[in-house]
Amino acid sequence: MVGDKWSVLIIGTLAEGPIRYSDLTAAIPGISQRMLTLTLKHLRRSGLVTRTAYAEVPPRVEYALPPLGASLLDTVLALAAWSADHQAEIRHHQATFDATTARND
Amino acid sequence: MVGDKWSVLIIGTLAEGPIRYSDLTAAIPGISQRMLTLTLKHLRRSGLVTRTAYAEVPPRVEYALPPLGASLLDTVLALAAWSADHQAEIRHHQATFDATTARND
Repeated sequence: MVGDKWSVLIIGTLAEGPIRYSDLTAAIPGISQRMLTLTLKHLRRSGLVTRTAYAEVPPRVEYALPPLGASLLDTVLALAAWSADHQAEIRHHQATFDATTARND
Repeated sequence: MVGDKWSVLIIGTLAEGPIRYSDLTAAIPGISQRMLTLTLKHLRRSGLVTRTAYAEVPPRVEYALPPLGASLLDTVLALAAWSADHQAEIRHHQATFDATTARND
């Protein structure tokens, strides 16, 4: 499944076209180098993202959405939009849940 | 984010109405007791799933989708449908990726 937070943000960012690794890091606040590398590898392994290395000096590497990744875009953007729309409500539930759990411990 | 495999399957199963823990285990092949318990707790903490304990003998506990969880349903079902539709294609990419990676190691 590819609905995890970082996959959603990477696929959403790649919707705008091929992008370099460094630009991906800048476009996704909070993602660690390790998590970006791991998630890109997971997405590449599933055929949702492609990696193209150009034989230039200095070498240029770009990540992009092939048709399979693009076919997931609408769903991923809907998931991201839902999360953004309900973030405050979810945070409220989480705070209430944590307070209740703390009292019961 | 709630797009992980088990959250998607749990929310999809709860779409049919309140359900007991044991029936959830039966309805989601392959989910371990530990993963079901953890994922239900994660979903409850975010306000996407409710847990109701009925003071009966023997005690009855049911899980259900409150409005917040129900509002995510269309997106979750779209994600599940996309995954089912593209499972073979993804498996193919994974096999090719693993074979290529093995050769390069």
